[in-house]
Parts: sequence; C-alpha cells; structure tokens
Amino acid sequence: MPPFDVPEGDPFDVPEGHPFGPHNLPYGVFAPAGSETRRVGVRLGDHVLDAGAAAQALGSPYASLLAHPTLNPLLAAGRTAWSDIRRALTAWLTVPSHRETITPHFHPLSSVTLNLPFEVADYVDFYASENHARNVGQIFRPDSPDPLTPNWKHLPIGYHGRSGTVVVSGTDVVRPSGQRKAPTDSAPLFGPSTRLDIEAEVGFVVGAPSDMGSPVALSSFRDHVFGLCLLNDWSARDIQAWEYVPLGPFLGKSFATSVSAWITPLDALDEARVPPPPRTHDLLPYLDDSTEDPCGYDLRITVTINGHTVSEPPFSTMYWTAAQQLAHMTVNGASLRTGDLYGSGTVSGPSPTQRGSLLELTWNGRDPLDLPNGKRTFLEDGDEATLTAWAPGPNGTRVGLGEVTGRVLPPT
Amino acid sequence: MPPFDVPEGDPFDVPEGHPFGPHNLPYGVFAPAGSETRRVGVRLGDHVLDAGAAAQALGSPYASLLAHPTLNPLLAAGRTAWSDIRRALTAWLTVPSHRETITPHFHPLSSVTLNLPFEVADYVDFYASENHARNVGQIFRPDSPDPLTPNWKHLPIGYHGRSGTVVVSGTDVVRPSGQRKAPTDSAPLFGPSTRLDIEAEVGFVVGAPSDMGSPVALSSFRDHVFGLCLLNDWSARDIQAWEYVPLGPFLGKSFATSVSAWITPLDALDEARVPPPPRTHDLLPYLDDSTEDPCGYDLRITVTINGHTVSEPPFSTMYWTAAQQLAHMTVNGASLRTGDLYGSGTVSGPSPTQRGSLLELTWNGRDPLDLPNGKRTFLEDGDEATLTAWAPGPNGTRVGLGEVTGRVLPPT
Repeated sequence: MPPFDVPEGDPFDVPEGHPFGPHNLPYGVFAPAGSETRRVGVRLGDHVLDAGAAAQALGSPYASLLAHPTLNPLLAAGRTAWSDIRRALTAWLTVPSHRETITPHFHPLSSVTLNLPFEVADYVDFYASENHARNVGQIFRPDSPDPLTPNWKHLPIGYHGRSGTVVVSGTDVVRPSGQRKAPTDSAPLFGPSTRLDIEAEVGFVVGAPSDMGSPVALSSFRDHVFGLCLLNDWSARDIQAWEYVPLGPFLGKSFATSVSAWITPLDALDEARVPPPPRTHDLLPYLDDSTEDPCGYDLRITVTINGHTVSEPPFSTMYWTAAQQLAHMTVNGASLRTGDLYGSGTVSGPSPTQRGSLLELTWNGRDPLDLPNGKRTFLEDGDEATLTAWAPGPNGTRVGLGEVTGRVLPPT
Repeated sequence: MPPFDVPEGDPFDVPEGHPFGPHNLPYGVFAPAGSETRRVGVRLGDHVLDAGAAAQALGSPYASLLAHPTLNPLLAAGRTAWSDIRRALTAWLTVPSHRETITPHFHPLSSVTLNLPFEVADYVDFYASENHARNVGQIFRPDSPDPLTPNWKHLPIGYHGRSGTVVVSGTDVVRPSGQRKAPTDSAPLFGPSTRLDIEAEVGFVVGAPSDMGSPVALSSFRDHVFGLCLLNDWSARDIQAWEYVPLGPFLGKSFATSVSAWITPLDALDEARVPPPPRTHDLLPYLDDSTEDPCGYDLRITVTINGHTVSEPPFSTMYWTAAQQLAHMTVNGASLRTGDLYGSGTVSGPSPTQRGSLLELTWNGRDPLDLPNGKRTFLEDGDEATLTAWAPGPNGTRVGLGEVTGRVLPPT
C-alpha cells in the first residue's frame, strides 16, 4: 500500500446532491501532499481517487492507461475505452465490496496539488457566441451597418493560440506589457496593459487523433472529443487592438490561457445536451446539424471578480456547437492530435448580466462595474477572476464543472 | 558495429566547394535503409553520419544528447552545448585518426529516409518582408492609400499556426477543401481550393526554453535559437480571403506547412550575417537593433515549380529580423519551449522575379506564369513546389540549406 495520508472523513460519504457525486467523475492530475509525483485522479465529492493505484489494486486491465503523470494516454485510448473505464470507475465507487480495496487510494482534495491535466497539443480559440460577436462589433466598429462580419453566420470563426502558455487554474498571471496606440497617440507606446480582461469560455479536449487529409464529420464529434473544461482566455485589449489587423490576435492573448484542473467527460453531460439556437442562415452540408443529435450544452457559468459575481453567462446560447467547430477545424484536412484543445469563444448571453468579458460588461470601460471593493473597468493588480459552472445531471442533480481561477500580478 | 550498409564511396571525400562540406554540418533525423529507427544525423557531402552512434563509438560525452529519435534533447541543451558539439563533430570529421572509428556510421544520403527533425511545440508565422506586405496590400486593398497597415513598421506582425500539421520535405499535400465566397457570389461555396499557393519562408527553431513572464531580449537571440530551416507555408488564398476577418488566417493555412529535413545551426551562418534594411521609423527600445550585432541573414532562395525556377527571393531584404521577432513574441511574457518554430513570413525582394508566392508572381492570377509544362496562376494537382537556398560561407564557400519540396495531390 502506498504511503498516503489517511483521508479525512469517509470518501464514500458524499452528500446527496453533491455536484461531484458518482454521476460526475471528472478527471485531473494531482500530486499527493508532500509529493511531486503526478497521478491521474478522479474526483468524488471532496476527495480525489488515485485512479491508477486503485486500478492496480483491483487488478483492472485499465491500470496501464491510468498510471501516468498526464491524461494523454487515457485521452488517446478513444471512445470505447473512455466509456468502459467510466463504467468500471462507477462500479469501484458504488459496489460495496470494492470499498476496502480502494479506500487507501483516496486523498482529501484540500491536501493535493492540482496540475495541468494534459499536455496541450494545438490550441484553437473560436468566437461562437452571437451576443459576444455583436457586442464586440458594436464596440469596435460603431459605424458599421452590421456588427457581425459577413462570414460570421456561415462558419465558426477561429484562430490558433499559444499552447505553451496554457496553465492550470490557480496559476498567477503577470500583467503583460506590450505596444498600444490609441487613435489620438502619434506613435505607439510601450508599457503594461491598461485593459487586462477575462473571457469566460468552455474548452473542449480532443482525445482520439485523426489523419491528415481526413475531415471529421459532425457525427464523429463524440468519437474524438473526450470532455470539456472551463477556460479563461486572458486578453489585453489595448495590445490586441493595435496588433490584430490583418493577421488576428497574437500578443494580446498569448501571455496566458487558464483552464480548470478537472476535465468533465462528455459521458457525464448527457442530460445537459440541448439544441443550439435556431439558425438564421442555411449552412453548408458539413456544418448542417439540423438532423444531428443536439450538441449544444446547457452549462451555467458564473464569473466572479474577487469573489463578487459579475456575470452569469449561459453556454446554451452559443450559436456554433463544439461539433461544428470540430468539423470546421478539420474540413481542410487538418489532423487532430491527442491533447488538442479548443475554446468556445467568450460566452455571452443576451442580457447585460450575462456577458463573459469586462469589455462587454463595462462597454469598453464606459460603464464601470461597482464592486464591493471598488469600481472596475478592467482588471487591477491583485484582482482574482474566477469561473465556476454546473450543468443539469440525472434525476435533478447538478454536474459540477469545477473552477478556473487566477490572480493578476503586477508587471515585472 | 551496427548492421549498416557499407557506404557507397568514401564519405570523407567531399569535393572542394561542396555546399555540405565540413563548414556546414546541418542536423536532421533519419532512418537507415530498411529500418524505421530514427536517429540524429549530420550531413557531410552526400552522406549522413549517425551522430549518436559515432559519438558512442568515440566515447564522447555527447552521445546521450545525440542518441534520440528527434533533435529535441540536443535543442534543449543550449548554446554552450551546441557550440561544443559542433566543435567535436568538426574534429571527428577532419582529424584523420577518427576516420576508422566513425566510417561505419555513415550512410549514403540516397539510402536513408529523412523525417521531421524535431517535435514542433508552438508554431508562429510572421509577415516580415516589406515587399511582400506591400504587394499583398496592393492586391487586396487596392483603394487603400497605404498598402501597409498602420502597425506594420512598428512591430513584426505575426500569428500562431497549427504545429500538428508541420510536415517534413517530401510529404505530399492534399489540396484542401473549404468555404470560399467571391464578392459576386451571393452565398459561400464549398469545394477544393482553386487558389492553392506557396509561401517561400525561412523557419527558426527554438532550442533553449524561457520562463513565463520573462521576455527574451534582442541580445539573447543566439542563446535561444538553435538554427534555421526552409519552410513552405502552403496557403489556400480563396479559403483565407473569406475567413480571415477579423481573427486572421486559419483553415487557409492549417492543412500543411512543410519544412526542410536539415536544420542549419546558426553557428554555420556567421559569414552570412548582414544588417537588415535601413529602418524608416523609430523603434521602441525592445525592438531597436541599431546597436546590436547584425541579425539579418544573406540567404539566397530559389523557388521552382516542377523543376522550373520561378523566383529567387533574397532573405537579406527582410525588414524584421529573427531576433526582433523573438523579442516581440516574448515581450508580453509568453514563454518559449524547446521545439518552438517561427516562420519569417514570405520572402519577397523588390524585383518581380524575387517574389515568394504565386499570389504576387501572378498578381492574384492576372498575369499567369509561362512554364515549360503550361501556364500557371495557382498550383495544379500534381505540381511539385520546391525551395532551395544557400548562404555565403567561410573562404568563398557556400553553405547549403537543403530543400523543402512537396507535391500537390488531388482532393480526396
């Protein structure tokens, strides 16, 4: 038996209605107290099960997939293995005869260090909320007759981001410096960003890879995507505004992207599947999901700044689904790799209290937020931004999606 | 002694003036004839030295860095190790007493398979040729008073690309399909790209990583960048034109990016260093290279289509240097990882015969090229596009940069 701390409390004693009950079972990577060894963990209530050690103790054939310092081998194993392992985990956690064997492999959540759960291959960010795109269009192009660009309703707009700066929830983010130039400035200035923002997003994690030259159809979404996480696409609006024409965002985004420590399997979210909003334009066949199973997700996000709720963006309002994004991303023959991550784009609902960025919430700084600890247009040093979320689960339960949080450190 | 084929000819018998003489010594990853085992190779003339096996046979302390299926461990080792190993290799290849020991570890170049030489971490593409940017601006924004966007002379514009579809020279490229919409079309169409293009670029390979929050100064360029390769940034102009506003190129580029099999160390290119063109605008301090050692490179590129030369782009005309690109890419605190790759952007000189893309060479299809096997506006199925290059070396020699080539396959 490994030299683990004895868990505090009974890990099986999960209160009824706990958002991390046995109906959820998200995956992460943790290091036990006093150790730097990373292990695949499964969350149950307020405990973490060392999945590889439990599998080994039970003689499970899945032990070899779970005994790694990252989720990547599990991600690569594909849909059948994912479902089989989830069924096995459910049995281990609910069949009384396994209790004695696996109890030593639980750790109190409060005692462990949570790490980046997978090695990110390519990172892509989309722009799939119509409300967000309209808000941004109105803010940045007030004279344009249509706040949406002409392509917006025909394809899910996306771009590649920096995978090397994807960090796990809890990682501090140093305020980035860069060039900015207001229309009234005669030349660009250099200095710390004065318009540091968040973007509340959901990230989708690719497990099974695909070959170059082989597009992934809408109907194959669940064969390739393992699960989802919460994602904060930190954005320096002043840097972004000066650099992004004509090749898109670069340094305004690449300093950091934070993801939650827990990856929720799609298998835990069946009850949360909803149809996307009605389409206002005919879609080309590779994006036409009118005859597909619904692939929107009813995820209720809460955005807090220093613990104060500033917004509640509803993911169900997203115009483009994750299946459409995957089909679009590969329709040119681009391959998928295990560990590819794609963000939904900022989630903003139709109401002013449902906007997923400070840019929109303060209308580019015009209408400051009145928080208990002072007014805010954009983030100040020391501010902590946090996303949490839940989704409807079976029998009236909630499926917790954990959180992604980060504090702004002053520029170095 | 490993079961290698006996080399054809004497590998040490490299003709005077050979562009891959002992003054060059680029690195690659190869598999010997009949084997799938990848090894680090160093090119000498028309042979490849199995560097790990040779190092081991000689009892070199560098054997452990070289005995891998990828260059990444060598890349991660840093500048001092790179220079030490290059000195050691030069000694092995020029001191007669080593000949007998290392001769068995040569393979004829024609007998080996060349692989992608390193695992690509993040891939970034810049836009650093003023001639290219002006040509593209005139083609796409003919009514604009200035073909350059207002930021162009103030920062090296760049964006992230897809690292998962970076392939080695010789890999076929399937013509991508996607959405396109001409101004006269009422709705977007879907189908194979009709404007498939090349972009002649130079790729820079990051070896030593950097920490998040720590920008890399201009003067540290050589501490982080190991060497360079040739890079063809395949581009579907019709897909790109419809998708790229407002978030930049995505599917128009992500189907494939080809790199040469040989990475030329910066140490082999000291005689090719030249000052960049005169700057027309004051630069912010982090980009101001007026007091730095010159960091332009005099690389002479040749572009051929089906063996016929269509252009000779001079890399010495690039406005932004690779050192400036590195400083810019990290000035916001973005970290570097071993294996990061960044492309220079299309290399186009001032003359019409020096343009690095068919977009410019045919002026967006208006002026077809008259090739021996027919006229060309953009690439046709079966066309083979190839970049080769050389740089001035010591004592009047040339340093060969190898080639990057690829053939267009019909859409699937």
